[in-house]
Amino acid sequence: MRLADLPTPALVLDRAALLRNLRMMAGSVSRHGVTLRPHLKTAKSIDVAMLAAPGFGPITVSTLAEARYLAEAGFRDQIYAVGIVPAKLDAVAALNAKGADVKVITDDLEAARAVAAHPGRIRALIEIDTGAGRGGLTPDDETVPAIASALGSRFAGVLTHGGHSYAGRSVEEIRQVAENERAGIVRAAERLRAAGNEVAIVSMGSSPSVLNAASLAGVTEVRAGVYMFGDLMQVQLHTQPLEDVAVSVLASVIGRRPAQNRLLIDAGALALSKDRGTQTMAKDYGFGLVVDLAGRPVFGDAIVTRTYQEHGVVESDRPLPFDALPVGARVRVLPNHSCHTAAAHPHYHVVDGASDEVVAVWPRVNYW
Amino acid sequence: MRLADLPTPALVLDRAALLRNLRMMAGSVSRHGVTLRPHLKTAKSIDVAMLAAPGFGPITVSTLAEARYLAEAGFRDQIYAVGIVPAKLDAVAALNAKGADVKVITDDLEAARAVAAHPGRIRALIEIDTGAGRGGLTPDDETVPAIASALGSRFAGVLTHGGHSYAGRSVEEIRQVAENERAGIVRAAERLRAAGNEVAIVSMGSSPSVLNAASLAGVTEVRAGVYMFGDLMQVQLHTQPLEDVAVSVLASVIGRRPAQNRLLIDAGALALSKDRGTQTMAKDYGFGLVVDLAGRPVFGDAIVTRTYQEHGVVESDRPLPFDALPVGARVRVLPNHSCHTAAAHPHYHVVDGASDEVVAVWPRVNYW
Repeated sequence: MRLADLPTPALVLDRAALLRNLRMMAGSVSRHGVTLRPHLKTAKSIDVAMLAAPGFGPITVSTLAEARYLAEAGFRDQIYAVGIVPAKLDAVAALNAKGADVKVITDDLEAARAVAAHPGRIRALIEIDTGAGRGGLTPDDETVPAIASALGSRFAGVLTHGGHSYAGRSVEEIRQVAENERAGIVRAAERLRAAGNEVAIVSMGSSPSVLNAASLAGVTEVRAGVYMFGDLMQVQLHTQPLEDVAVSVLASVIGRRPAQNRLLIDAGALALSKDRGTQTMAKDYGFGLVVDLAGRPVFGDAIVTRTYQEHGVVESDRPLPFDALPVGARVRVLPNHSCHTAAAHPHYHVVDGASDEVVAVWPRVNYW
Repeated sequence: MRLADLPTPALVLDRAALLRNLRMMAGSVSRHGVTLRPHLKTAKSIDVAMLAAPGFGPITVSTLAEARYLAEAGFRDQIYAVGIVPAKLDAVAALNAKGADVKVITDDLEAARAVAAHPGRIRALIEIDTGAGRGGLTPDDETVPAIASALGSRFAGVLTHGGHSYAGRSVEEIRQVAENERAGIVRAAERLRAAGNEVAIVSMGSSPSVLNAASLAGVTEVRAGVYMFGDLMQVQLHTQPLEDVAVSVLASVIGRRPAQNRLLIDAGALALSKDRGTQTMAKDYGFGLVVDLAGRPVFGDAIVTRTYQEHGVVESDRPLPFDALPVGARVRVLPNHSCHTAAAHPHYHVVDGASDEVVAVWPRVNYW
């Protein structure tokens, strides 16, 4: 099977780029001497997990579906990194009863009491907010030691997510976010230790903060996911070059408007997602950058400027080669945000570099 | 099973609201004496199709996956309403060889020649642009009769989509779009008839244009899909009241910030979609309106203001009742755009009105 034979739209994964991205992250992390706990929210794939967390190493997941799927594949040591609710504890306990060690996170005293009271074996980390303003308590919040006490022997450590690293517009800004993240989570850990708690796990991360951190002193592990595939946001955050964006959406030309220098393709809002992550960045790629079948950016800044459910409108800053793009011609679209684009598809069609041969089909575990 | 027992996030369909919406559309269409060809792109469901197109009536589909799934369920008469590419003709022909009559659409002469030359039995409609500026040729374009000639006996009619009805900001504006759509597609049909072609199908539609059209004279059928479920965009287009929005996402509170009057829920960008369809409308609902477990808008304008992959941030114009919203409490989120939100989920949990009993689970056919 070749890319030119696949029904469109279809998700393509360049394994060579994936491996380069994994090597880059492994190098960054090993320099700091910390553990990498890859986040599988982006890939949702056993095949990718086997490469990113070799030897069934520790992983992070974002849904119970991922936890179940990857636990069954042999990945015991997991953190389910979305604030837990009591109703989900039975499902976690069921996985742990079969040999997994799925840890949960919370920033809520009542939820912590429910974890502690649950008859199953479930450990929890306390979620700390080091500036992202999503979930978590500030390192100095007095509820932090109260939750640790409520958890008792179920207390496993502290965790933060430096999601605001994505707002950084220079390496220096991202490095500062990473340092704030590190300093905040270490401070939370130290305060808990000073109060007599053992803090086994001190976890931070986002791809940009991990890749740019000057120091990870005091941190035991880092979590990151997007780095595996990269995307147009990561390119603009300077965490990777454009040629290392590993996922793309294969699409067919379904309409042509030479007079307007415009194409219509069969990858729309469902195939690409409506993520506009580059809208506020230096370069706005619309709904994605259009490249040729081999993945090369040969059409200038040809981007998907509008999406409908199954239609994408392609426009470019330079004349599109209409002779080479009849109805039925194939192109690929690099995504703004690979997590969201990949989630629109049931599996990956795997290629190696510029070869158009599909060497494997890797399933994903979507939904919840 | 009750809504309070479902794992979250989960897609909920209120069958009572669905039936009200179907009755409303049936009433509108029957007044005009035209055929309704419901678009299953929104529902992607056999169960919904059985209600919306009773007696296995004519339907519209947006993917080959829908075409296949619904043909196998008995829906023979279909239009696959996304510009066809030659590589997809074998799949269409295979369905038609088993008794279906899946018609394709095109605005491209080479694609029309491929349809005519295909050994399978495939008919095609010519796509006409009546102002939406997506696909299609203008009614007076000289390529229109050339495509009809190329199709020969495979020529089935003309089709247009008044997608720009969504840009209408008053009933009067939408009515004008509908009239332009009607006049344009009828003009295309009349020109083809004057040139000696039989034009069996003259098809137009979008939910707003069909529901607001003053006249459908000369049109043989209308296509619409969103009306079945409705959403916050449709409410603002005055095609339905808020209580008739039939789909919502069930979510759990996973974090609380009383000091900021803010909640965190476990429905984020993947469960809600990143559709921001109300952003440019009279009322911007962020990523959705938060209502209670029974579907009632009791929290004021509580909307999802930010999304992360699995997190939604809820903020309101009035104080949220934190005592009634501990971690684990359930809410529902009404979507901006039901097509995109529903596409994030594998099935519907069906309830009847304000009852929290799940009376059925209806599967969807996602992907392509």
